[in-house]
Amino acid sequence: MEKIARQGLLYDFYGALLTEHQRQVYEDVVLYDLSLSEIAEEQGISRQGVHDLVKRCDRILEDYEEKLHLMEKFGNTKRLAREIQSLAGEFSRTGDRNLLRRIEEISGEIIDLEAH
Amino acid sequence: MEKIARQGLLYDFYGALLTEHQRQVYEDVVLYDLSLSEIAEEQGISRQGVHDLVKRCDRILEDYEEKLHLMEKFGNTKRLAREIQSLAGEFSRTGDRNLLRRIEEISGEIIDLEAH
Repeated sequence: MEKIARQGLLYDFYGALLTEHQRQVYEDVVLYDLSLSEIAEEQGISRQGVHDLVKRCDRILEDYEEKLHLMEKFGNTKRLAREIQSLAGEFSRTGDRNLLRRIEEISGEIIDLEAH
Repeated sequence: MEKIARQGLLYDFYGALLTEHQRQVYEDVVLYDLSLSEIAEEQGISRQGVHDLVKRCDRILEDYEEKLHLMEKFGNTKRLAREIQSLAGEFSRTGDRNLLRRIEEISGEIIDLEAH
């Protein structure tokens, strides 16, 4: 995954655990793609300060994911849902009953997924 | 949801963010259903101490859920997966094509679910 995409996802999952200030700066970088200089000026801190703050936020968010793996789990769920969608489409075309059984199995996998 | 079931779920999702000591005591209460006295003896702290620790863990875990809502989101995903499973079963019996379309729609809903 591209770095900026991963940062965006991590922020979606765990951003609420950052401070208000961290969130502002991290959003400017990750969601609004502002330059370090622009953010530095806006926030009244140095470019290096912005850079360090972003690094620190990366670390904090990665630490949460390392402990909780919730982004990974959600990714697995979506992969399974994509599989169901494609099997349903294939079944519409072919009428192969095995595909229907696969759909029931995969939805069962989602239901049985544990958080830990 | 019953209190003990909610505690178990919260622990599944966010337990990794508690300290080792908090985890031990919380597991004794929530997963192994030991009495406060048993845990107090085992841990060498007072019954009141165990009680306070469990309350504090409840608060910490609820705070994470309040901020992140990941348990709630996972619950929604599972509900949708259960719906898919039941629609697939119903389709097997009735052959109603609308059910198949519903399955594609619902898997799409899971795919589009956002973390925030």
